[in-house]
Amino acid sequence: MRQFLSVADVSDVSSIVQEALALKHAPHTHDKLGNHKTLGLLFFNASLRTRVSTQKAAQNLGMNVIVVNVGTESWKLEFGEGVVMEGDTVEHIKEGAAVLGQYCDILGVRAFAGLTDREMDYSENIMCKIIRYAGVPVLSLESATRHPLQSLTDLMTITELCQKPRPKVVLTWAPHPKALPQAVPNSFAEWMRCADVEFVITHPEGYELATEFAGDVPVLYNQDEALTGADFVYPKNWSSYRNYGAVLSQNRNWTLTAAKLLQTNAAKVLHCLPTRRNVEIADDVLDSPSSVVIQEAGNRVYAAQAVLKRMLETNF
Amino acid sequence: MRQFLSVADVSDVSSIVQEALALKHAPHTHDKLGNHKTLGLLFFNASLRTRVSTQKAAQNLGMNVIVVNVGTESWKLEFGEGVVMEGDTVEHIKEGAAVLGQYCDILGVRAFAGLTDREMDYSENIMCKIIRYAGVPVLSLESATRHPLQSLTDLMTITELCQKPRPKVVLTWAPHPKALPQAVPNSFAEWMRCADVEFVITHPEGYELATEFAGDVPVLYNQDEALTGADFVYPKNWSSYRNYGAVLSQNRNWTLTAAKLLQTNAAKVLHCLPTRRNVEIADDVLDSPSSVVIQEAGNRVYAAQAVLKRMLETNF
Amino acid sequence: MRQFLSVADVSDVSSIVQEALALKHAPHTHDKLGNHKTLGLLFFNASLRTRVSTQKAAQNLGMNVIVVNVGTESWKLEFGEGVVMEGDTVEHIKEGAAVLGQYCDILGVRAFAGLTDREMDYSENIMCKIIRYAGVPVLSLESATRHPLQSLTDLMTITELCQKPRPKVVLTWAPHPKALPQAVPNSFAEWMRCADVEFVITHPEGYELATEFAGDVPVLYNQDEALTGADFVYPKNWSSYRNYGAVLSQNRNWTLTAAKLLQTNAAKVLHCLPTRRNVEIADDVLDSPSSVVIQEAGNRVYAAQAVLKRMLETNF
Repeated sequence: MRQFLSVADVSDVSSIVQEALALKHAPHTHDKLGNHKTLGLLFFNASLRTRVSTQKAAQNLGMNVIVVNVGTESWKLEFGEGVVMEGDTVEHIKEGAAVLGQYCDILGVRAFAGLTDREMDYSENIMCKIIRYAGVPVLSLESATRHPLQSLTDLMTITELCQKPRPKVVLTWAPHPKALPQAVPNSFAEWMRCADVEFVITHPEGYELATEFAGDVPVLYNQDEALTGADFVYPKNWSSYRNYGAVLSQNRNWTLTAAKLLQTNAAKVLHCLPTRRNVEIADDVLDSPSSVVIQEAGNRVYAAQAVLKRMLETNF
Repeated sequence: MRQFLSVADVSDVSSIVQEALALKHAPHTHDKLGNHKTLGLLFFNASLRTRVSTQKAAQNLGMNVIVVNVGTESWKLEFGEGVVMEGDTVEHIKEGAAVLGQYCDILGVRAFAGLTDREMDYSENIMCKIIRYAGVPVLSLESATRHPLQSLTDLMTITELCQKPRPKVVLTWAPHPKALPQAVPNSFAEWMRCADVEFVITHPEGYELATEFAGDVPVLYNQDEALTGADFVYPKNWSSYRNYGAVLSQNRNWTLTAAKLLQTNAAKVLHCLPTRRNVEIADDVLDSPSSVVIQEAGNRVYAAQAVLKRMLETNF
Repeated sequence: MRQFLSVADVSDVSSIVQEALALKHAPHTHDKLGNHKTLGLLFFNASLRTRVSTQKAAQNLGMNVIVVNVGTESWKLEFGEGVVMEGDTVEHIKEGAAVLGQYCDILGVRAFAGLTDREMDYSENIMCKIIRYAGVPVLSLESATRHPLQSLTDLMTITELCQKPRPKVVLTWAPHPKALPQAVPNSFAEWMRCADVEFVITHPEGYELATEFAGDVPVLYNQDEALTGADFVYPKNWSSYRNYGAVLSQNRNWTLTAAKLLQTNAAKVLHCLPTRRNVEIADDVLDSPSSVVIQEAGNRVYAAQAVLKRMLETNF
């Protein structure tokens, strides 16, 4: 695996899931693999799980880790081509990325969607420029349109918990006070389409995901209908793709509650976290055994470790 | 030692002091003890000594350390029960703590008192919630009402410097431009009551510490009287407990000066730092051999190391 | 080498350059030298290259690294003598530096010029106080008047790329929207004067560097004349030393362009980075093979590693 930006970088989805599950049971088996290798982690946005779990994954492999927070610790970066830099950006990404490529053997990058310019976000402008100029393998820590370490973790968690072949997995939109990117649902859809699951998406009209991600996955506008018989439910907010970045609904009828889970097949509830309690998901779900969000967050370490292990094996 | 939140977590105060002093002379004796163990350090507030000395202590024991600064690097946390999270908090402590518990073998936490709601602060609301939800041993890096790593260091420094049995130790209030928590004096009082010292507290009326911390320690409102014959003096500001969070006095007569030390038994001066020069303590004290604040700060490493060593030995 | 603050700390400039070049080809040769030694990195200002390259250099030598960002992570520091600290500074540098000296075996410090008080900046007020109070060897990560790790890297890069004896090296002023310190040009001049090069400085009138740095280096006010036959060109903005901190010119005729390079001897272009594209240096230079700024940035690791190696060998 040269890089890890989307499910397309994984030739064998089910075998990397098995590798992550195996690492969970023996995390220190390859603790010399990354010796003398440096992982740089570049954050344009806040992070808790990704920040800590990826550091831990790298340490489990014996890598050095250097974290850079853009803006607070480092210089404000320019992404425009041909710009006369007389404003508030101090360094161009051409230099910023190339320099980090000099210091890091692998570069992890978190850069959220801006949600104002759809074409810019969906071209993965920031991530593509970093890849182009860094010259070293890049690991996505969530880009404008995808969060592949999360999606790998989600599939790992479903596999770990699954009691039956071809479980029903439902991705359901849920309300949120702010406009959020589509990266998590896009990426989840993309990975579920590569997995042996029955996958359904439900959301209010106007929240359709881009076709490149949702493909021909069934979309229901009736949440109750979608939830019926579900084995796994993934409630998650996102803003509109069509009316780009808009919050079309704050309808609390879409909040995932324990009552709604009654119509499922005793579904386990997944979420990438952070989540707004009692807006996206009710307390009576998160505080119940239905919720597996903490186990899922714990699995982030081993998903990242499986990916880093493959990147180390391929590139060095 | 399962956790380290107060002196009550130490069964044998004098023996952990001796252990810290021994580690000072041989800091690398146990440099494999923490291998493959991760210490997470979660800061809700600024830190210099605690941040660096605890990292160094963990590294001396061979642990990995991951630092998380809440707010600047990570998400703003919600502590309220049953809150509908439609405001500016992004993640609930229930998830935040539980997730860190997935990644860290020991979790260090700094969370100062808010000084507006006494009941909330003195219930140790934040620390208790983190302990409850993290599910891993917690190390206090200063909580709303206590700073036990500092107090252990203080006692270690008194022991290291002490020339005689049962020295007289005086905790004296000192002025400060801002309202500060009672954590340091509370904790110092609690630890001194477990030590073989003659302990006296002096402050202006209205600055009485909570009874659970001060117990029946003699309190004098006359600083000169308290300082007479002192072997160790700990000048420190705190805000009022009774009139919670209030600054009742800015009286510079309480600033510790070299002239005041003349009535002591050539007392050594302790302080947790940072200190406001010429407000809490005069230059002529801090710049004189009477001050042992730098040696004391250096001892923070070995106090933290003794505590982490015990936590590693007990929990794993 | 006890400390590293300027070229004056290096007894043999050409041999440390050779040592850095050798480390570039075998960076892990001394990976136990720094075991059980801690490098503290104290940042008063933003940093990308210095932050990451110095961490990596220390890791290559087996050192532990602890980073402290003043202001965001730690306390605001006071530098004044005899100040009554009732304002917004929380800790005096006397304590701050001395405490870090307790925890770190070597202390790296970045503290830019304030550009308002020339005497204060040129006395190296902050750096000198830290050296005085820390009590451990100090490594400059850029001070008010010098950036010696950058200058060593610059000379290393010139040596690495040089095809002939005594190349012509031109430091040329270039425009910039903000007032910048003189640290980089000062330091570059100081190092070039110790190297076997033909060194020329060019800038608009009023931008003369302090004599202690520029010495009797030829200064030309005509950029074209200076660039003629140059083998290496270092375009860099700085504010006025004479009219301290002033931006006397925004003249874009001084921007380094590909057209201007035509009059050189196919010069290689150096820069410390970050640079404002199309203000300091045109895209047609930075995006061409003339630019060696990325290779130069990569060399920062080995310059820092050569310095740290010598400091470890001398002090421990």
